[in-house]
Amino acid sequence: MKKVTVGIVGGTGYTGSELLRLLARHPQAEVVAITSRGEAGVPVAQLFPSLRGELDLAFTTPDESNLTQCDVVFFATPHGVAAAQAAELTAAGVKVIDLAADFRLQDLGVWEKWYAHKHPSPELVPLSVYGLPEVNREAIRAANIIGNPGCYPTATQLALIPLIEANLIDVNDIVVDAKSGISGAGRGAKVDMLFAETYDSFKAYGLNGHRHLPEIEERLSVVAGKPVNMTFVPHLLPMIRGIEITAYANLTQDISLSELQVLFEKRYKNEVFVDVMPQGSTPETRTVKGTNRCRLAVYRPQGRNKVVVTSVIDNLTKGAAGQAVQNMNILFDLPESMGLDTIALLP
Amino acid sequence: MKKVTVGIVGGTGYTGSELLRLLARHPQAEVVAITSRGEAGVPVAQLFPSLRGELDLAFTTPDESNLTQCDVVFFATPHGVAAAQAAELTAAGVKVIDLAADFRLQDLGVWEKWYAHKHPSPELVPLSVYGLPEVNREAIRAANIIGNPGCYPTATQLALIPLIEANLIDVNDIVVDAKSGISGAGRGAKVDMLFAETYDSFKAYGLNGHRHLPEIEERLSVVAGKPVNMTFVPHLLPMIRGIEITAYANLTQDISLSELQVLFEKRYKNEVFVDVMPQGSTPETRTVKGTNRCRLAVYRPQGRNKVVVTSVIDNLTKGAAGQAVQNMNILFDLPESMGLDTIALLP
Amino acid sequence: MKKVTVGIVGGTGYTGSELLRLLARHPQAEVVAITSRGEAGVPVAQLFPSLRGELDLAFTTPDESNLTQCDVVFFATPHGVAAAQAAELTAAGVKVIDLAADFRLQDLGVWEKWYAHKHPSPELVPLSVYGLPEVNREAIRAANIIGNPGCYPTATQLALIPLIEANLIDVNDIVVDAKSGISGAGRGAKVDMLFAETYDSFKAYGLNGHRHLPEIEERLSVVAGKPVNMTFVPHLLPMIRGIEITAYANLTQDISLSELQVLFEKRYKNEVFVDVMPQGSTPETRTVKGTNRCRLAVYRPQGRNKVVVTSVIDNLTKGAAGQAVQNMNILFDLPESMGLDTIALLP
Amino acid sequence: MKKVTVGIVGGTGYTGSELLRLLARHPQAEVVAITSRGEAGVPVAQLFPSLRGELDLAFTTPDESNLTQCDVVFFATPHGVAAAQAAELTAAGVKVIDLAADFRLQDLGVWEKWYAHKHPSPELVPLSVYGLPEVNREAIRAANIIGNPGCYPTATQLALIPLIEANLIDVNDIVVDAKSGISGAGRGAKVDMLFAETYDSFKAYGLNGHRHLPEIEERLSVVAGKPVNMTFVPHLLPMIRGIEITAYANLTQDISLSELQVLFEKRYKNEVFVDVMPQGSTPETRTVKGTNRCRLAVYRPQGRNKVVVTSVIDNLTKGAAGQAVQNMNILFDLPESMGLDTIALLP
Repeated sequence: MKKVTVGIVGGTGYTGSELLRLLARHPQAEVVAITSRGEAGVPVAQLFPSLRGELDLAFTTPDESNLTQCDVVFFATPHGVAAAQAAELTAAGVKVIDLAADFRLQDLGVWEKWYAHKHPSPELVPLSVYGLPEVNREAIRAANIIGNPGCYPTATQLALIPLIEANLIDVNDIVVDAKSGISGAGRGAKVDMLFAETYDSFKAYGLNGHRHLPEIEERLSVVAGKPVNMTFVPHLLPMIRGIEITAYANLTQDISLSELQVLFEKRYKNEVFVDVMPQGSTPETRTVKGTNRCRLAVYRPQGRNKVVVTSVIDNLTKGAAGQAVQNMNILFDLPESMGLDTIALLP
Repeated sequence: MKKVTVGIVGGTGYTGSELLRLLARHPQAEVVAITSRGEAGVPVAQLFPSLRGELDLAFTTPDESNLTQCDVVFFATPHGVAAAQAAELTAAGVKVIDLAADFRLQDLGVWEKWYAHKHPSPELVPLSVYGLPEVNREAIRAANIIGNPGCYPTATQLALIPLIEANLIDVNDIVVDAKSGISGAGRGAKVDMLFAETYDSFKAYGLNGHRHLPEIEERLSVVAGKPVNMTFVPHLLPMIRGIEITAYANLTQDISLSELQVLFEKRYKNEVFVDVMPQGSTPETRTVKGTNRCRLAVYRPQGRNKVVVTSVIDNLTKGAAGQAVQNMNILFDLPESMGLDTIALLP
Repeated sequence: MKKVTVGIVGGTGYTGSELLRLLARHPQAEVVAITSRGEAGVPVAQLFPSLRGELDLAFTTPDESNLTQCDVVFFATPHGVAAAQAAELTAAGVKVIDLAADFRLQDLGVWEKWYAHKHPSPELVPLSVYGLPEVNREAIRAANIIGNPGCYPTATQLALIPLIEANLIDVNDIVVDAKSGISGAGRGAKVDMLFAETYDSFKAYGLNGHRHLPEIEERLSVVAGKPVNMTFVPHLLPMIRGIEITAYANLTQDISLSELQVLFEKRYKNEVFVDVMPQGSTPETRTVKGTNRCRLAVYRPQGRNKVVVTSVIDNLTKGAAGQAVQNMNILFDLPESMGLDTIALLP
Repeated sequence: MKKVTVGIVGGTGYTGSELLRLLARHPQAEVVAITSRGEAGVPVAQLFPSLRGELDLAFTTPDESNLTQCDVVFFATPHGVAAAQAAELTAAGVKVIDLAADFRLQDLGVWEKWYAHKHPSPELVPLSVYGLPEVNREAIRAANIIGNPGCYPTATQLALIPLIEANLIDVNDIVVDAKSGISGAGRGAKVDMLFAETYDSFKAYGLNGHRHLPEIEERLSVVAGKPVNMTFVPHLLPMIRGIEITAYANLTQDISLSELQVLFEKRYKNEVFVDVMPQGSTPETRTVKGTNRCRLAVYRPQGRNKVVVTSVIDNLTKGAAGQAVQNMNILFDLPESMGLDTIALLP
């Protein structure tokens, strides 16, 4: 069987290197081009020494890269880049998967408010599909442009969807307390992200508004069939990889914890990447590190009216590059977990 | 001026060693006895090499320790120990400060439910005072027995008291998402607390109920003048010291963020250990490590109805031994910050 | 092709869980039994949640486990256990791979001095083979009992072998400064290995003699054809996985750095798991985490007489379970890297 | 008593903030000016929130700062700055303490080779004093310009001086394997020092030559009265603060471990900041964090010919700002440990 040929635009950041790690072992995909203006000519294994002996490929300039000859192109770029190039690629029959935010929101007004510039290709937005396979699998299969979900939105939606689909909670008053490892901030040289500024410390950030909030609200509103309102506070963990979110909502119906457990297990019964843990367990980020899994657990503390869900993912894998490969597998009719079967290190 | 003579019961754990660090530098206190059955005869500096050259003292058995000759005795022991010995000590005129939970709750029924055994001296409970100086300073000054607050309850109460005193929030629906460093679990040899089990990972725990919940609810109910209901979920941070809590509540009055800021600043204007940070700041645990400070910030995200407060302390200092020394200073009419003026390392 | 059937004795520690991680993905091996008296009946995925959905197996008592029916049995046990059971297993035609130290030393006098008890089966020792494939591949292929090398000895030997084989250094005066992550201390509940005792700190240990010293000296003496003398000082890194050793030796011949580089590259040209990095590089432990690779670099600082080699491995993989699987692959004529092709996470 | 008035040039880096932490609590010193072109006008507590409520001071431009009115000026600047300004300051009667390398080496040829530019004021170098009080106390007392030692050189010299003074080792073949926390790399925004690039990893660096090597060799040669030759390999620890060095040398005389222990204890008997630990102990970096102490231990492994010394300091305190304050105390006839009595946090 002919392998899927893959191009990656912007491969020098952390989602780019994660794509390389996953695709280097993918049995039915082959990275044929990875672009970087700054590193053109440099072997990827020089920038990412974990790839020494694993991937014989060098960065190329966008012009040299013949992206229109690829089957699929991933954009691991700043916001705005994918939208500017998607039209040409899709016209050439290339599938586009954007790991940035250009195709995450359907409401362009909201997009332009939160991303603070004009959308480069508004006409493509309605044609794009939001790439959360656990909700949108069939639409993804037929899509030409996929907006790969944000990391927090992935962990949050998987935690809340069963409750919202079953109409069990007050969607006007949801609290999501989110914590992320530092790799989410990217590979840019910023004083705030130095080891000496972040190790052995913890803080909230983005309290005035994080761009993942409108994404979560828009997508959950689609699920709910009505507007969803959420208070979303992210925090910075002194770890490289891993997101945990703890979601709190008020139950609108009386439902026992055991029934909640059954609800979640049923909802995700066929989802290979979502693990509903047994009652009383607590998901740990280390058990999903480097994997495409989400593990979650549902609680009703003290039997009160509040339902609590805790959910963990690896922000670079299920929260970015892993989910992108999962979407690629769906697009090309490959087994959904192909190339995504890593087991987390423990310890 | 004669120094305050101090006894410490149970000095081999982390709150005990933190008491030693603070008292070794206290200009008006002298540790004259520190008990440990297991380590009797061993110099404290052998167990805690950071004290080499700082404190010339050895552990003694409780019998040798002449605790009734001390001015004050700190209990850094498991729950139940202070309550069993407090009557004898207070009869001898010794002040008692319990760093465990024997005197944190006035409602004995609740205490016995959460601590799962009979209280050893129920008659002393009504005579004891809850040692949160920012609320109870005058009562502390006159007390013989002080129940030193729990770590989470300290960070949480300081975050919420201004809002509750001003009757601004719905006290029936408060969410507190709390995160603590691992030293809170103590110095016992447990597999779950090994480095290899906790480093580079994050998880919720205690979702079925943490003992600090009834303490917070009881104390805030006193402030509110009516029952307070809270959802409280603690999490384990891969750090040694530091607690951050993010509290979420619904406003019952329309109040601007600037007015909220003023409210907090006024409430803590005279509190040397509470730092209300400027609007838009986010407290970091590293800035309070090893200090007795609480730093907090108040937000009203997206101008919606939810008020959010983030608050940080060092769980072993303001959350345990530092607050105990602060209480001792009040008891003996010393300046409240004496011996508590450490500046956190940065970086 | 029939899969190799595998038994694991003592699977509740860290080398046991690492064997499970690797073998769960091995295309030609199947774990059929994993013993633990304490955890008999418990699914492995309950103890190691990273294995949920990956391995459907429970611990069994040694009696139930039918180890004599396996093709190969791994011992991930304390010293002494493998030696006590190896005779029965090899008599039944089962290959034995001991991850402890029973078959690492040929000199029983030295063994009994350092391991402080009588060797349980001295007659088997001369029949066993030291399982460092880069030196002993042909002997391993024919062996019935393999003594899997220690972690420090693996990193150290790979660093020094090219120099000793070429007779380039004074083998009477080698210094090895070694650093290891904490997982090397195992999963036992010890206060010294608590997170709160080891995080954010670094120290030497074992200065009076580490058991890996006689192992390294014996094996390198075989290579040198004369006694090798080494000063070996291990240190404890605040990380879970990873060993780095820096080796220092005096050159006995004048040889340029470029010639040293060529020497190392030639020696390891055909070794898939040894990566000689380009001149001027420095191996990082993160690039080998979870993998079976050793990366190393050779230097001659300031052009002086001292040659310096720095070498990194993952102590649980190439330093234990990964190397054991590599030995299994050799024993059963499988491709040597089968099941060992993980790429390290970066970042 | 009039306080010593202090100016700090270049206060936005990590040695600058450490000076501020220490001097904010110094009973006989007062920081009157801290310069920064980039941050002029900004309160120091805004850049370093740990100083909120502790120090009421803002950065000023060099021109505004009236440094010639200070009693002493510390330079926490890149190499070259102090040398350019020292003449003017000393002419005005101001003492100069340079925390960079301008006055660490007497041999200007060596300096210019390693620092790769011309020394800005070669005439001042012979007048300056190397500020290691444990060797140079009397010269420091009379100095006008002090070259504050490097971090590695401090830990290394304190480890080796007793052996060299007693003429016990071969000074032609010393190995120093050094490890440092990341704060040593400073507060500049570099990709290599990001949390995501350095956490959970370990590596050697600077194998081709670190600038601290010539400093150590020059100073130890003075002690030895003949040239000292060292192989010095630094490594990067995933911690913020802390240096450990392990030094290896060949004994030239037969001396027992107990005699070595006595030698070290005698040498440092009157040194408040050097703690010779009891035989068999191992110094941990955490026990000196934030303090001005060096702890060390001496070994003779297996009774062989190699003496091994392990020594720990905090690179920002005894390795930089703390030692600078110690030098200031000596210069102004203050008790040497004034303002330097912090006890390390444990845990």
